Amino acid sequence: MALLLHLNERDETQWAEAFAVELGDYPILRRGDAFDPAEVEYIFVWKPTPDAFEGLSGLKAVLSLGAGVDGLLRHPTLPDAPVVRFVDEELSECMSDYVVAHVAMHQRLHTRFMADQKARAWNQLYPASARTLTVGVMGLGVIGQHALGRLAPLGYTLRGWARSQKSIPGVTCFAGPETFDDFLSGADILVNLLPLTGETEGILNYETFGKLRRGVLEGGPVVINAARGGHQREADLVKALGDGTLAAASLDVFEIEPLPQESPLWGLENCYITPHIAAISNERTGVAYFSRIIAEHRAGKPLPHVVDRDRGY
Amino acid sequence: MALLLHLNERDETQWAEAFAVELGDYPILRRGDAFDPAEVEYIFVWKPTPDAFEGLSGLKAVLSLGAGVDGLLRHPTLPDAPVVRFVDEELSECMSDYVVAHVAMHQRLHTRFMADQKARAWNQLYPASARTLTVGVMGLGVIGQHALGRLAPLGYTLRGWARSQKSIPGVTCFAGPETFDDFLSGADILVNLLPLTGETEGILNYETFGKLRRGVLEGGPVVINAARGGHQREADLVKALGDGTLAAASLDVFEIEPLPQESPLWGLENCYITPHIAAISNERTGVAYFSRIIAEHRAGKPLPHVVDRDRGY
Ligand SMILES: NC(=O)c1ccc[n+]([C@@H]2O[C@H](COP(=O)([O-])OP(=O)(O)OC[C@H]3O[C@@H](n4cnc5c(N)ncnc54)[C@H](OP(=O)(O)O)[C@@H]3O)[C@@H](O)[C@H]2O)c1
Ligand SMILES: NC(=O)c1ccc[n+]([C@@H]2O[C@H](COP(=O)([O-])OP(=O)(O)OC[C@H]3O[C@@H](n4cnc5c(N)ncnc54)[C@H](OP(=O)(O)O)[C@@H]3O)[C@@H](O)[C@H]2O)c1
Repeated sequence: MALLLHLNERDETQWAEAFAVELGDYPILRRGDAFDPAEVEYIFVWKPTPDAFEGLSGLKAVLSLGAGVDGLLRHPTLPDAPVVRFVDEELSECMSDYVVAHVAMHQRLHTRFMADQKARAWNQLYPASARTLTVGVMGLGVIGQHALGRLAPLGYTLRGWARSQKSIPGVTCFAGPETFDDFLSGADILVNLLPLTGETEGILNYETFGKLRRGVLEGGPVVINAARGGHQREADLVKALGDGTLAAASLDVFEIEPLPQESPLWGLENCYITPHIAAISNERTGVAYFSRIIAEHRAGKPLPHVVDRDRGY
Repeated sequence: MALLLHLNERDETQWAEAFAVELGDYPILRRGDAFDPAEVEYIFVWKPTPDAFEGLSGLKAVLSLGAGVDGLLRHPTLPDAPVVRFVDEELSECMSDYVVAHVAMHQRLHTRFMADQKARAWNQLYPASARTLTVGVMGLGVIGQHALGRLAPLGYTLRGWARSQKSIPGVTCFAGPETFDDFLSGADILVNLLPLTGETEGILNYETFGKLRRGVLEGGPVVINAARGGHQREADLVKALGDGTLAAASLDVFEIEPLPQESPLWGLENCYITPHIAAISNERTGVAYFSRIIAEHRAGKPLPHVVDRDRGY
């Protein structure tokens, strides 16, 4: 019995030390160690290599440091064991911070005032107040609902879209593909917080952008994507940002990351690029979360936040 | 008995029509009309000309469309009558929208990511969460308290500074000049919502900037001024934004408005300029507010929101 750490692009040593403190006697293994792979009960992964799961015949769960598991679920030799994803209040807070900052910035017509500043032009345009604008959130899971909870006290009119019908106080909820156009038609600022699945891939495309509400937010509607690059068609974004279908966009994620040097998105003054930093799983809370899960599971409790592999999230 | 409108740089006709609906029989005068100035009981002003108050011997109150009365109080022939200022929920909401947008933008290191975007550089820097940062609000009046109420649910640590001691749940309150340095020393983002008076003029100066907390907000502290241009020393801002004393600033108001073409502030990439549009007094709510005040005052009730001319606000 053991926990195997398999973290790429992260300081694995730090995580190992922190887990050791929490897990007491329970053995913690790293890839360089000499061990029998059949002993591994739990594997904790971030960007696993192709051979990550080789020989792990006694595996009870795959623990994912990422809140999104789209990459992990595409792993060619992902074993049958349950996949547990990371759910964390601090991660949700950082995601909401990103969403609030970009929603508010666009409400306040930042792109317009930056252009005026560049031209040294004093044009007194008064932004519409939060209450007159509708923010539409795609994805009403842990993060989507958290973000809505942060937008609500700011006065925005809110609507949300998910697979199943939700009931969230102060939010007009839409469910399923047949309500998507209705949902879009009343949204001035569209925020994407969906997981990446076969159904949601490429959902941020030119047709979608064209269905957003026009005439309320000065300059046109705005899209904010903090979920996955696979959700967006970047050629469509470039077109929509150029022809006025969208007034602006804020993108934290990209089809290819790092965003290639030659991407035209870099050069668009109405496109706000951040390098996939909306939120990062934090070592302190991550170790606490997964240590508790391991301890409780060993004591016979069920695993929480298990991914539904058919749905893809 | 009559209400005289005296609005410059505003569509006075619209206001006159709206007042007529609310005030019924009560006469509404405009400057072009033929009338005896001694009949005027109330004058409703925005940027009054030097002769605005000539002959108004029967004046009962000066009604100020502006929430700030610094300009009006400097009027050389302002009569002795009480000055009533505009206090309005929608105005406060717009001010808070501005404050929230700029606080959140700076928390999310907007200046840094814009510079990286320009350089097509993918640098994964994770902004500290709202809870780790302290926002310090100068001025705990109608607008300052409203803005704090909007910042609180976003998770920021909050402190405020006023003349008199306040008790606001969730906000560490400081009072008086002797606590100013203490107040500043724990603030990462400084928001100015003071009225402009002899005591507050030039308060946003290099010395003040140097007293803000360093080392918590990546890049350095930030100043946001949504009150009056007279609060800031623009030469000091240019210096502080250039030498790193401040990481960035958001300015809605300026020593001279419109900001002169030659001002170096226009060209600073860490200075966000908006043309005094944080909020504007709205006709619908303004007419409702002042009509109610006139009706109640005529019925014998005291005037609300009377400016203390000794204090200057
Ligand atoms: N940029 C970053 O730094 C960063 C950091 C963390 C996470 N993320 C992204 O954020 C995503 C959301 O995370 P979460 O924790 O909120 O996920 P979650 O709790 O699993 O919620 C997913 C939500 O999306 C809805 N949904 C899924 N498929 C849908 C479809 N086909 N049509 C309509 N709605 C659909 C779900 O509907 P039901 O409620 O009906 O199931 C649910 O409301 C993650 O998957 C990840 O990609 C990004
Ligand atoms: N940019 C825009 O579009 C815009 C729009 C509207 C208003 N404004 C500005 O916003 C300002 C604030 O409005 P408000 O309605 O909140 O005013 P307010 O209700 O009169 O509040 C003023 C606050 O400032 C404090 N203060 C005054 N002098 C002080 C001093 N010397 N030291 C420390 N604190 C002092 C007061 O302290 P006490 O509570 O102890 O009296 C009070 O808390 C207005 O004066 C106006 O200039 C700007």
